[in-house]
Amino acid sequence: MTFTELWERLLPVGRDEHTGGYRRYSWTEPDAACRSWFAAAAAELGLVTDCDRNGNLWAWWGRPGGGAPPAIVTGSHLDSVPDGGAFDGPLGIVSAFAAIGQLRSEGFRPVRPIGVAAFTEEEGARFGVACLGSRLMTGTVDPGVARDLRDGDGVTLAEAMLAAGLDPALIGPDEPLLADIAAYVELHIEQGSALAGLGAAVGVADGIWPHGRWRCDFTGRADHAGTTRLPDRRDPMLPFAAAVLAARQAAADAGALATFGKVIAEPGAANAISSGVHAWLDARAPDEVVLEQMVSAIEGAARSAAGDHGVGFEMRRESFTPVVSFDPGLRDQLVRILAAAGLVAPVLPTGAGHDAGVLAAWIPTAMLFVRNPSGVSHSPAEHAEPDDCATGVTALAAVLAELAGQ
Amino acid sequence: MTFTELWERLLPVGRDEHTGGYRRYSWTEPDAACRSWFAAAAAELGLVTDCDRNGNLWAWWGRPGGGAPPAIVTGSHLDSVPDGGAFDGPLGIVSAFAAIGQLRSEGFRPVRPIGVAAFTEEEGARFGVACLGSRLMTGTVDPGVARDLRDGDGVTLAEAMLAAGLDPALIGPDEPLLADIAAYVELHIEQGSALAGLGAAVGVADGIWPHGRWRCDFTGRADHAGTTRLPDRRDPMLPFAAAVLAARQAAADAGALATFGKVIAEPGAANAISSGVHAWLDARAPDEVVLEQMVSAIEGAARSAAGDHGVGFEMRRESFTPVVSFDPGLRDQLVRILAAAGLVAPVLPTGAGHDAGVLAAWIPTAMLFVRNPSGVSHSPAEHAEPDDCATGVTALAAVLAELAGQ
Repeated sequence: MTFTELWERLLPVGRDEHTGGYRRYSWTEPDAACRSWFAAAAAELGLVTDCDRNGNLWAWWGRPGGGAPPAIVTGSHLDSVPDGGAFDGPLGIVSAFAAIGQLRSEGFRPVRPIGVAAFTEEEGARFGVACLGSRLMTGTVDPGVARDLRDGDGVTLAEAMLAAGLDPALIGPDEPLLADIAAYVELHIEQGSALAGLGAAVGVADGIWPHGRWRCDFTGRADHAGTTRLPDRRDPMLPFAAAVLAARQAAADAGALATFGKVIAEPGAANAISSGVHAWLDARAPDEVVLEQMVSAIEGAARSAAGDHGVGFEMRRESFTPVVSFDPGLRDQLVRILAAAGLVAPVLPTGAGHDAGVLAAWIPTAMLFVRNPSGVSHSPAEHAEPDDCATGVTALAAVLAELAGQ
Repeated sequence: MTFTELWERLLPVGRDEHTGGYRRYSWTEPDAACRSWFAAAAAELGLVTDCDRNGNLWAWWGRPGGGAPPAIVTGSHLDSVPDGGAFDGPLGIVSAFAAIGQLRSEGFRPVRPIGVAAFTEEEGARFGVACLGSRLMTGTVDPGVARDLRDGDGVTLAEAMLAAGLDPALIGPDEPLLADIAAYVELHIEQGSALAGLGAAVGVADGIWPHGRWRCDFTGRADHAGTTRLPDRRDPMLPFAAAVLAARQAAADAGALATFGKVIAEPGAANAISSGVHAWLDARAPDEVVLEQMVSAIEGAARSAAGDHGVGFEMRRESFTPVVSFDPGLRDQLVRILAAAGLVAPVLPTGAGHDAGVLAAWIPTAMLFVRNPSGVSHSPAEHAEPDDCATGVTALAAVLAELAGQ
């Protein structure tokens, strides 16, 4: 089974016909179809498939545990952001199966078990917590809190898992599984255009910028848009707008990133001043001090603008991921393996969170990036060239052969 | 049946228990309950109820047409904006029934028929066109276009009317009904605080500011919020924010009103740059030249900011209501009638649209305003004092007695 065959079988699943974007949210029908695709691909390669207590999928070449040496795991995720692209997540899993297929056809015999993992709810698009599957597995999210997470329709994670045939009472830390893993290497499309600028098809991750999400609530007063004098208004849309512009300025000043991508105005009538505006700030920076300073600057600007308009303002951190430095030894080993395979792989930082970032606190972890010519991601326009995807498979096969061959 | 009895029976209908605001949208269950309330109130007063072809309700004291002299009609609307207040609309109808009750108890015998009208979809909260019932009746909206209007769930007006037992094929101009009406007087809570400032319980409308709604579409490119460098972004949230602030400035400069109360960011993920931001501008000014200049200034600022960020921008007028001057003779007659009843009623302009504004092009039309201490409207906090409501009933009864008594 070639990369292209695997890729094209997965391509139609969960794609919106109007936007061309993907809506693969965990524990929905498209998610079930992705899981079936995973099981079928694993079966064709003769791998044993398993779904762990947290809903993460595993396909094994050789059984882990039971006296076997700790395994080498690769993988990524199959879920998407709303109207996401085809590559973010699936590229790592398709490449993993293709690399194993290549190693098989070359007659490679692993000394250690090799696993392919598909972590659930990496994007947090349904239940709001990114990397939920790997966080549950490592115990970095409380199982009770996780069970009560609700999607936009009010369905809890527990209800969704139950409906999918899993027992939500069993979610939580999985130390035995973690103990069976010697290293995790995640291949992912680059979500930026650094490799394109450097003329390299693949790269190796250095670390992940610290990043977080803050909820901003601007509370004003609903009023008639046609009759309320400007001085009498308490319009929360105005300080929200000021916060959007302040965030951009603060990010530029800090050499960092700040984005408002989600906003809800209530009641949302075209002829009424809003009673409230709720918005989410995504902020990332090279280090935690810079991040904190930038977020403080944005908060200060929002609070000041709210005060100017008689609007209440609250800002609350919803999630935070500290800086992640991937295992330096493993990182350097990957660069050497790729060089030996004739591939120049630059070392890059990234602002994006990944399951690899969560797992890095527990096991030696590394990431391979595949070139993204436009840098566009989280969009239907996300793209990687077939040649670069093939190079990614070659690189991953070389890494697995080296790490699992001894 | 007193004003208070009528009022309190209507009060619970369509009220959201969390916000305390009203969600009385046309052709929904709360709307049906409002219509039952109307029929019951009319029946208790011995009035004959009728639903016209466009879904507007009528209660008649004396039959119009058939050789009767043209009628005097009062009324307003029962539908609400999302989370609107209790007074905007219903006050006019409850006051109409209470005034008729008072005239009856005083032994008044009308020379002309008196009608109470409840116009449907005045707020445009479900199908997006304000004053839809009066526009259909006067032929100022095309029936074919109206039938195809869709609510947020994709249900057309035709489907909604059919489900409510009306034949949507019959909607459209109703000249015979208009010809039977000598004058329309709408009582409404003031949606501002001018009367409070003047120390008057009631006022008489002079005219309605020209006003309109413009849809603004900012088209950017979805991208990963954590990896896309600032210079590579085409983030539509930024020019939207600039437009919000520009609208406020332009309104302040023009002595006018401009509001963004509805905004939709797509795809709406907290960790993605938006692909598009759709927002609605509500703009109103003392005259049409000022309105046009203000809207042009806002459009220019939005287009310029969009250009700065590589974002596409389109702005399209969705609705427009020219300046309305109510019948000067009827206006002055109302002031005289109220003065004779011991009420000083200042004459006021307003920025709010009303069915009276639509009907003013066809029949002599006037409006009575009841004091709103805070000026707040389109909000659960909207309020009028019971004494002022009682004065409104007295004023309306005096007007009806004079106009229908000769």
